Amino acid sequence: MTSTSTVTTGERITTARIEADPSIPAIRMTRDFAATPEQLFRAHTDQDLFARWVGPDGMDMQITDWDARTGGSWAYTAGSGEDSYGFHGCFHEVRNDRIVQTFTFDGEPDGVALETLTFEDLGDGRTRLHALSLCDSFEGRDAWLRSGMEVGVNEGYAKLDSLLADGAV
Amino acid sequence: MTSTSTVTTGERITTARIEADPSIPAIRMTRDFAATPEQLFRAHTDQDLFARWVGPDGMDMQITDWDARTGGSWAYTAGSGEDSYGFHGCFHEVRNDRIVQTFTFDGEPDGVALETLTFEDLGDGRTRLHALSLCDSFEGRDAWLRSGMEVGVNEGYAKLDSLLADGAV
Repeated sequence: MTSTSTVTTGERITTARIEADPSIPAIRMTRDFAATPEQLFRAHTDQDLFARWVGPDGMDMQITDWDARTGGSWAYTAGSGEDSYGFHGCFHEVRNDRIVQTFTFDGEPDGVALETLTFEDLGDGRTRLHALSLCDSFEGRDAWLRSGMEVGVNEGYAKLDSLLADGAV
Repeated sequence: MTSTSTVTTGERITTARIEADPSIPAIRMTRDFAATPEQLFRAHTDQDLFARWVGPDGMDMQITDWDARTGGSWAYTAGSGEDSYGFHGCFHEVRNDRIVQTFTFDGEPDGVALETLTFEDLGDGRTRLHALSLCDSFEGRDAWLRSGMEVGVNEGYAKLDSLLADGAV
């Protein structure tokens, strides 16, 4: 199960790759950015920056808990009123080249994924983000892949591209 | 890969069952206790109680971080000096019938497991602990199973049996 989508960011075409791991119940994702590893780290740990890019287009993000350090926690709500979706987790590890955190969609409170983000320096001011989302069943992983999650992922990363292009990160 | 060990606690024989999941890189463990779910919850969340039973016999446990609530964190050191082993993680969720936490052995700092403990009320003051440890590879899971981890697990639970029998929980 492979989903590859292409978005145009200024002069550059950027591709996000989302794959179901063949042997473990995990989603593997890679995405290249015109950013240094330090910038990607900042974009994932600075509360105000994170709120400006995460999630799909046109959805208001409210961060309700943010303590981006090893042993800290996070929570945010997307949308508002009855059309809002909550997410929360804890930060297992926050270090310059790697963030490990748990992830729960509040609509399915017993579902927990373990996410590992790594920032691979490609040189020349470019960085490859590797994201591994480990689920506790293949059924849960496949349901997540079928949920349309790639829309929010890709729209979010396109917003991050714009912030990077604008010098905001 | 199944390991079943039997320990005698007073008049009762208690069996801990440790199994490799056949389809996902996880260890599944069940263990019955002469305890209510509330007592097992307390034994896993009260810092002083936890330090009295976790780990193998004859090893000094020093809890260096303890915030047993949803979004909190934990760390402890087993042994002392050069023969000490550190472990740490964050608490994704702490609720009466379920604890979800991350787990890292500091000797292998990039290895992270996602642990889910549930307390199943069997009635008559007995509770079955279910523990799921989800790893990010079968190799890592199998190495952990081969490490002799069942010794510390079983000796720890036998200490918890004694604390329960003594009315200390």
